[in-house]
Amino acid sequence: MPAAFPLIDNARLADGRTVRLTLERGAIAAIEPMDGLRHGPSAPNALDLHGALVLPALFDGHLHLDKTLSGLPWLPHGAGPDRTSRIENDKKILPYLPISTRERAGNLIRRCVAHGTGFLRSHVDIDTHCRLDRLHGVLQAREDHAEYADVQLVAFPQSGVIRDPGTLELLEEAVKEGADLVGGMDPCIIDRDPAGQLDGIFGIADRHGVGIDIHLHETGELGLFSLQEICRRAKALDLRGKVTISHGFCLGTIAESSALAAAELMAESGVMLATHGAAKWPLPPLALLREHGVTVFAGNDDVRDTWSPYGTGDVLARAALIGWRADYRRDDQLGHAFDLVTTSAARAFGVADHGIAVGKRADFFTVQAENLQEAVASHPPRGWVFKGGRAVACDGKAL
Amino acid sequence: MPAAFPLIDNARLADGRTVRLTLERGAIAAIEPMDGLRHGPSAPNALDLHGALVLPALFDGHLHLDKTLSGLPWLPHGAGPDRTSRIENDKKILPYLPISTRERAGNLIRRCVAHGTGFLRSHVDIDTHCRLDRLHGVLQAREDHAEYADVQLVAFPQSGVIRDPGTLELLEEAVKEGADLVGGMDPCIIDRDPAGQLDGIFGIADRHGVGIDIHLHETGELGLFSLQEICRRAKALDLRGKVTISHGFCLGTIAESSALAAAELMAESGVMLATHGAAKWPLPPLALLREHGVTVFAGNDDVRDTWSPYGTGDVLARAALIGWRADYRRDDQLGHAFDLVTTSAARAFGVADHGIAVGKRADFFTVQAENLQEAVASHPPRGWVFKGGRAVACDGKAL
Repeated sequence: MPAAFPLIDNARLADGRTVRLTLERGAIAAIEPMDGLRHGPSAPNALDLHGALVLPALFDGHLHLDKTLSGLPWLPHGAGPDRTSRIENDKKILPYLPISTRERAGNLIRRCVAHGTGFLRSHVDIDTHCRLDRLHGVLQAREDHAEYADVQLVAFPQSGVIRDPGTLELLEEAVKEGADLVGGMDPCIIDRDPAGQLDGIFGIADRHGVGIDIHLHETGELGLFSLQEICRRAKALDLRGKVTISHGFCLGTIAESSALAAAELMAESGVMLATHGAAKWPLPPLALLREHGVTVFAGNDDVRDTWSPYGTGDVLARAALIGWRADYRRDDQLGHAFDLVTTSAARAFGVADHGIAVGKRADFFTVQAENLQEAVASHPPRGWVFKGGRAVACDGKAL
Repeated sequence: MPAAFPLIDNARLADGRTVRLTLERGAIAAIEPMDGLRHGPSAPNALDLHGALVLPALFDGHLHLDKTLSGLPWLPHGAGPDRTSRIENDKKILPYLPISTRERAGNLIRRCVAHGTGFLRSHVDIDTHCRLDRLHGVLQAREDHAEYADVQLVAFPQSGVIRDPGTLELLEEAVKEGADLVGGMDPCIIDRDPAGQLDGIFGIADRHGVGIDIHLHETGELGLFSLQEICRRAKALDLRGKVTISHGFCLGTIAESSALAAAELMAESGVMLATHGAAKWPLPPLALLREHGVTVFAGNDDVRDTWSPYGTGDVLARAALIGWRADYRRDDQLGHAFDLVTTSAARAFGVADHGIAVGKRADFFTVQAENLQEAVASHPPRGWVFKGGRAVACDGKAL
């Protein structure tokens, strides 16, 4: 059960101040220097942080809550080496697991929350085989954990929309039932009809006023072509700040001059990038994208699921991994790594009241680190996690 | 202080058996099934693991104990973006730190040990500026922690040997004073005289019967050229199994056919690869190298030091990172990732009595994981760490 603490004493902020935070109606009502205040817990319901660093809640911008095996005994990876095999393997495994989608998704949400994550964006598979079953499970998990995290759901056509006729209608239905965004998937490779897939999903977004988040694994010039087609439609439909390309491996596998042109195009059309660190692929040029004004945010992607055995759910560790791959070493660059899972992600999620400041929502976590840079680089275990002014996790466990 | 437990009950092994381990004279004297034995601690000095998984001690095959900032307040990264700037920056910073090399190195050794690491290979800078100062500090740290870990030291000419005349003599002196291997560094780029550098360091290894471990960051065909020159000398001097190429970024940045030829050459000349996961570079083709019989092992490289703010010292997490980058998903592949920091590393270190079996040295750690695969993929916090039959760390802290 979440616990309420109206006063939080001896909280150290990223700017070095040690303060008392007063929480009211789920928001930060006051931030006062501890100097001059009585030291130690001021009231029975005050929490003394003893100088632990307080940082704003983390965003996990790319997850698959419906595919996780969290809570199950170990299940060896059963798919072949290519993506198509993983898609087919999911159809053989996911419907027959002994734990429901709702329960598995809930397990992973709580795991992420215990790491300081307050906001998640999960893709949820929709095809003519599972129809809206997984969405329903994840919608229930979202409702179960409404006090713990804000969860955005992407209606994700993992099997394509042209290749699997009827999927577009299901995506539209998913949006009506509560999905926040409509997804897409490798419009050239999976559907072999990029115009067909993109027109279909942009049409849904346009009709329902929702965002778009498209998995784009396509590399090299092929991926660049799809990226250009996505940007063109985002601009035409005036969807600035509402369209995300997830992965965008093409950005790391084309000539630098082409990546520069792609960055300019993304910035101009307001198309964002979500990265999980690119694994075996070259990382997209994050600094270049940032310099050109492209919003880049990050997520864990697979966390022990039918696609990958890896992942801990700790998106701060993921920010460090991405920073390491991006060659971010200086303090300002470690700030950029943190930005991937906080400020830029908040912009992508459309969350305006994020941060440690008076009037902002009381969504934050504590960590034993000297400063923000050490918190990212070493990502020590989290202490308290607050959501909407209440403690929702402590020492690695959801309350 | 290390603590002795002659009996260890309810230890779960990677093969699924739950056993009692009897430790005698630093080795595993007996492994008996728990069935039939009295349950629970059998004697005042028995340790009951309650079914925790026991895995063999980890090897960290590439560290820089002399550069770490462990134990210091946060120090922002001060070097420029290129390697030469980092080399020059070290000369400005390392001699003036308020904590000695001995103490900083010791801090990092204990941190690694608490993660289950029982063997470390550290490069130690030697040049005409710092001469053998850092080696002396790290030699003291090694002696201080003789009961905690076996530490191999590489006399590392970070500034080159031709570019910095007098360094070869210092390397030879370092070997006489206790360095286990002689190092090298980008023979083309750093010295612009590959034959000069390689002949120099291979000469020392040949005269003193020590191994070689060369940092090879050079990419593409240039790195391939250096790799070929290293292999040629390893073969000529019959140094099979005694020569390591660290990083070998060239292997991930040349044509697949060239990488295949390089793997064959490495296997034929018994030259090994140590990888830290390649960061911004494509990962060398680990599966290909393994298939061709090349010994590949892994290490953390920088852990919060003057070169990088990242790193936790957890080499099991590093094995997961490398496995993730190598696209290792199946159970056998997770085994390959574990092999990078255990069996293959033991071969590279020349440690014969490693593993959980009767007669092997009692070097192991415990972790709450269902099996070896979960231990790698999720790398949960370590429990007990044993070295030479004695407990040297518990719950993340050296004893």
